[in-house]
Amino acid sequence: MKKLMLSPPTLFRLTVCYQVTMRAGEAGFENISSAYLADFLKVDETLIRKDMSLVGIKGKPKVGYPTKQIISILEEIIGISQHTDGILIGCGSLGSALLRYSGFAKYGLRIAAAFDIDHTKVGQRIGDYLVLPIEKGKSIIETFKVQVAIFAVPAGTAQELADWVVKRGIKAIWNFAPVQLKVPKGIIVRNENLAVGLAQLIHQVHTLAAKPKSKPKLETRKK
Amino acid sequence: MKKLMLSPPTLFRLTVCYQVTMRAGEAGFENISSAYLADFLKVDETLIRKDMSLVGIKGKPKVGYPTKQIISILEEIIGISQHTDGILIGCGSLGSALLRYSGFAKYGLRIAAAFDIDHTKVGQRIGDYLVLPIEKGKSIIETFKVQVAIFAVPAGTAQELADWVVKRGIKAIWNFAPVQLKVPKGIIVRNENLAVGLAQLIHQVHTLAAKPKSKPKLETRKK
Repeated sequence: MKKLMLSPPTLFRLTVCYQVTMRAGEAGFENISSAYLADFLKVDETLIRKDMSLVGIKGKPKVGYPTKQIISILEEIIGISQHTDGILIGCGSLGSALLRYSGFAKYGLRIAAAFDIDHTKVGQRIGDYLVLPIEKGKSIIETFKVQVAIFAVPAGTAQELADWVVKRGIKAIWNFAPVQLKVPKGIIVRNENLAVGLAQLIHQVHTLAAKPKSKPKLETRKK
Repeated sequence: MKKLMLSPPTLFRLTVCYQVTMRAGEAGFENISSAYLADFLKVDETLIRKDMSLVGIKGKPKVGYPTKQIISILEEIIGISQHTDGILIGCGSLGSALLRYSGFAKYGLRIAAAFDIDHTKVGQRIGDYLVLPIEKGKSIIETFKVQVAIFAVPAGTAQELADWVVKRGIKAIWNFAPVQLKVPKGIIVRNENLAVGLAQLIHQVHTLAAKPKSKPKLETRKK
């Protein structure tokens, strides 16, 4: 199979298709229609058909796409079918939740170890993990050939930590710290900024509440 | 002040500017430059200046924008300066982490109560919250005039729950369940799909690892 680098919107749609199809498969459905997938994503059906065709998934008119085929092809395309080792750094409330969350394994990510800088947290057990001192990180990254580091640390420590893990060979950072990281070219950073999501929600709630009947004024810029 | 409805990209930039400026302010900086903010967001400086001008924040050449002004104006614009009451539904590992996370209060969201459908979880204490049975939701939503519901529930229960909270007067759902919700017009849904973020990261790691020296092939569609 060709190795495609998919654009973020395509990959977003394919990942949601994967999730929806997984649940449909678990519920016993053998086929799934583009209309059903399109409805979930609130996009046009033709776009789903183009996505499926792009990755080589073949459907039948009036039957749909075989769920098994969608799952196996998308697992390969997304990269889920291969195991990826990661480490988690920062075992506060968010880090602990991420450690206890079993959903990552479905996406091929296995958390090899969990670390904290705070020595009072070291030695604690969280789910299946024992919190290790960050000093042990180097040998674990090398032993497991870890490529991904998950940052669940405060904003203030994230950059220093990024420099540290990149020096030790980490290729990608999944960053939950609310800060933009500076990394060398070729290193992947994916930011999950929950505060931005919350701010957008709060903003919408207040804007809509302020003008319940008329359409809210859309921003305008001077040209 | 005019009530602006900002586009998601503008609001994203302003929220990050708010976060960065908060930290700069805490560190004692009285002014912050558009160049510094632009560097954080990896956008052009002129875009930051337009954003600031749009919301009425005035800077001085070679001095920058006063941090206090950025903070107070953006708090008003985003809606942080007003309190918003929310409830959280689903007290598993992610829900517990969200309950323990103090960062939401900074964005004006106060979680009034936490609920679970699972009666074995009801009565447990998580951080400052006592898990309540979902049946108590109606009276709490009415008493506190709750507008926001945070869903930290499995995909299978989220839609039924959405119908239920919307009937009880909830205006916005911050949805952590990996499912697209169907809601009546005028109800706001904001999805936080961690699996999509992870899938994108994993995909990038594998695509880049597969072709370390040449540029990966970008997707192409037949016209």
